[in-house]
Amino acid sequence: MNKTTRERMLDAGLSMLLRHGYHDLGIQAVLKETGTPKGSFYHHFASKEDFALQVVDRYMDDVHAGLDASLGDLSLAPLDRVRKFFELTRDKYREDGYLGCMLGGLGQELSGVSPVFQEKIETCFGIIAGHISACMEEAQVSGDLSPDADPHEMANLIVNCWEGAALRCRLRRDATPLDTMLDFYFSAIIATPGSHKVSAAD
Amino acid sequence: MNKTTRERMLDAGLSMLLRHGYHDLGIQAVLKETGTPKGSFYHHFASKEDFALQVVDRYMDDVHAGLDASLGDLSLAPLDRVRKFFELTRDKYREDGYLGCMLGGLGQELSGVSPVFQEKIETCFGIIAGHISACMEEAQVSGDLSPDADPHEMANLIVNCWEGAALRCRLRRDATPLDTMLDFYFSAIIATPGSHKVSAAD
Repeated sequence: MNKTTRERMLDAGLSMLLRHGYHDLGIQAVLKETGTPKGSFYHHFASKEDFALQVVDRYMDDVHAGLDASLGDLSLAPLDRVRKFFELTRDKYREDGYLGCMLGGLGQELSGVSPVFQEKIETCFGIIAGHISACMEEAQVSGDLSPDADPHEMANLIVNCWEGAALRCRLRRDATPLDTMLDFYFSAIIATPGSHKVSAAD
Repeated sequence: MNKTTRERMLDAGLSMLLRHGYHDLGIQAVLKETGTPKGSFYHHFASKEDFALQVVDRYMDDVHAGLDASLGDLSLAPLDRVRKFFELTRDKYREDGYLGCMLGGLGQELSGVSPVFQEKIETCFGIIAGHISACMEEAQVSGDLSPDADPHEMANLIVNCWEGAALRCRLRRDATPLDTMLDFYFSAIIATPGSHKVSAAD
């Protein structure tokens, strides 16, 4: 493998932070996992906090790849693209043994005591919801989302409901809460026949 | 105040665990907050883990009081009782400065590494969902909940969606995500006129 030491530490951080959370993760464990000397860690990262923030950025790289693969799939109707994003995310959770979402984990653990992480995690959720919101607007134009719905609010809503389902998934090591939430959400927001395409030309 | 030392430590634990989470909370801080000598802590609690588990029990006492005050209010229709429970919970969050839910916080922080907390928190959610499920069954009998809905599944669903909204509430120190989720959930599950009271005598 041609990965740099920094990349290997961030890769290890992804799975270790997801399982352990922030405070239970020791730098020593990251060094051991990656066979890295201590000096090298502090060459690449100013502190444990800096390391964790960069792991979150690395996590968001994967989130962006998922957003591109789903919301960018124009062969699907807009709401199907949104659902595909969460289904891809669920498939990623399966690979991790259903430990849920790192953003939700760090957000819960740290936002009571760390303004830095509070802002970082809220920003990440805002970015995800922003991409979904744009797709929801498309759904509204095509008449699949009710003209009464607020695309931005509906985007934040699904992100939030997903995070709660992801917590329960983590507790139970089981995808059922995720699928139940998606079925409920999409059956609820799809425009009912009465309002369907009333205001859309297409 | 006639509170025992043990009660004062559990009271302090409620607010301190909610803000700090488990690993960031030091026993020393609890002793300082309550003016208690170290020996007294270990007289009442076997360990920090034992203390936190007893704080969760204390938290659940408040949850049960909320369930009694809402689900037990027979002047309300069943779905309104369920909504009242979450509105009372939201009001409690406001008193705490919108730090969200301790169960969600500890569940996220610890369930990757502690089977004890993983089981404890999942059990708490199961208890809450069980009470709500019974009320959902009443709603189905009265025709307010569609006969096609699974009351148990709908109960777990609202608990999970609430937890995600509570995370976002914690990140933003703001109740909006909670209210948006409740509005969405209840407008979605109320039986539509077509199915309304079709199978109910009343």
